Amino acid sequence: MTLTGGSPPTLFPVAERSLVLASASPARLRVLRDAGFDPKVVMSGVDEDAVEAPDTKSLVTVLATLKARAVADRTGDAVVIGCDSMLEFDGEPHGKPSSVDQARAWLQAMRGGSGTLYTGHCVIDERTGREASGVVATVVRFGVTSDAELDAYLATGEAMMVAGAFTLDGRSAPFIDGVDGDPASVIGLSLAKVRALLATLDISITDLWATVAS
Amino acid sequence: MTLTGGSPPTLFPVAERSLVLASASPARLRVLRDAGFDPKVVMSGVDEDAVEAPDTKSLVTVLATLKARAVADRTGDAVVIGCDSMLEFDGEPHGKPSSVDQARAWLQAMRGGSGTLYTGHCVIDERTGREASGVVATVVRFGVTSDAELDAYLATGEAMMVAGAFTLDGRSAPFIDGVDGDPASVIGLSLAKVRALLATLDISITDLWATVAS
Repeated sequence: MTLTGGSPPTLFPVAERSLVLASASPARLRVLRDAGFDPKVVMSGVDEDAVEAPDTKSLVTVLATLKARAVADRTGDAVVIGCDSMLEFDGEPHGKPSSVDQARAWLQAMRGGSGTLYTGHCVIDERTGREASGVVATVVRFGVTSDAELDAYLATGEAMMVAGAFTLDGRSAPFIDGVDGDPASVIGLSLAKVRALLATLDISITDLWATVAS
Repeated sequence: MTLTGGSPPTLFPVAERSLVLASASPARLRVLRDAGFDPKVVMSGVDEDAVEAPDTKSLVTVLATLKARAVADRTGDAVVIGCDSMLEFDGEPHGKPSSVDQARAWLQAMRGGSGTLYTGHCVIDERTGREASGVVATVVRFGVTSDAELDAYLATGEAMMVAGAFTLDGRSAPFIDGVDGDPASVIGLSLAKVRALLATLDISITDLWATVAS
């Protein structure tokens, strides 16, 4: 068949599988979109505070799984991705700070040191009901910042909205010296991990790509 | 003074110093914008092929410096940033691939291995004429990809547009297992390095932030 209508040419077909992101995180959506995916966003409604686990690594994996399962119950024929992230510093899990003073105290304690960002991932194939989950641990190395720099950063308001009170690619980017691991797992989710988990379900991640034009 | 007009409130003042990016790279511009900077883009016109250096590390630093100097000659009172990036794999520098076949050969050789992405940075303070330069080396670990995955990736066309035939945050993100170093240096430029270079010129990077609203 030859294209005769007004449709733009595409270099490869539209997505063979539809994708659902069980998260309201704009950062996760952006990581996916930047890499050519166009997921439907469905919030899971999981009460994160009601979940307990023996350690940070287990907690984020359990939460990612609960989120994916909650959404997979309500939709049809898609691949569902659930995620959860937490920073561990000095043996303590750090979610979003509860006050500017707490954010300042964290940032002061973290400067010149390093923490580990854990991101749990769960994928569910609604066609088969099979699921796979796994965690990615990425070491984040914080630069040596001055109090003036931290005050300027805190004034932007960003710290209050993010786990660990920092971003890798936002206003605090100049204050992070580097990472050891998958940076996308710090920003939102690891596509390398999602690819590996999907492979165990016999799904190729490239089948989830949207069209070039989208 | 109390704000009485229609202007939106800002949490901190507009940039105290203006910023110029001596590069047409959309990835570098985006790294800066995501972190709250709003640089003016000025292309340097430097003939990159005419420059020689003993190794990749020196080459990217020389090119970054030539780009910044070329632009600093033509503008006024700003801080100028010049950058250049190259992937070194198996001892060979890899810029943009010259053909799809070359891109495929590179990606096949790199899978399961690692390379080093060198990004040279140069900052010039036009007020004083002082400059500072430095290089960031980041190890990139490539996942084990199938020929089918590489063919799907090559069909997107992205590989032809980027140094080393891959991106960390674009279509090839699922095929990169991780990095050791500053991921922003792989995507475009290291803001941690820019911050450090500016500090040697007695400039605080937070003085270059645009307003919250921009």
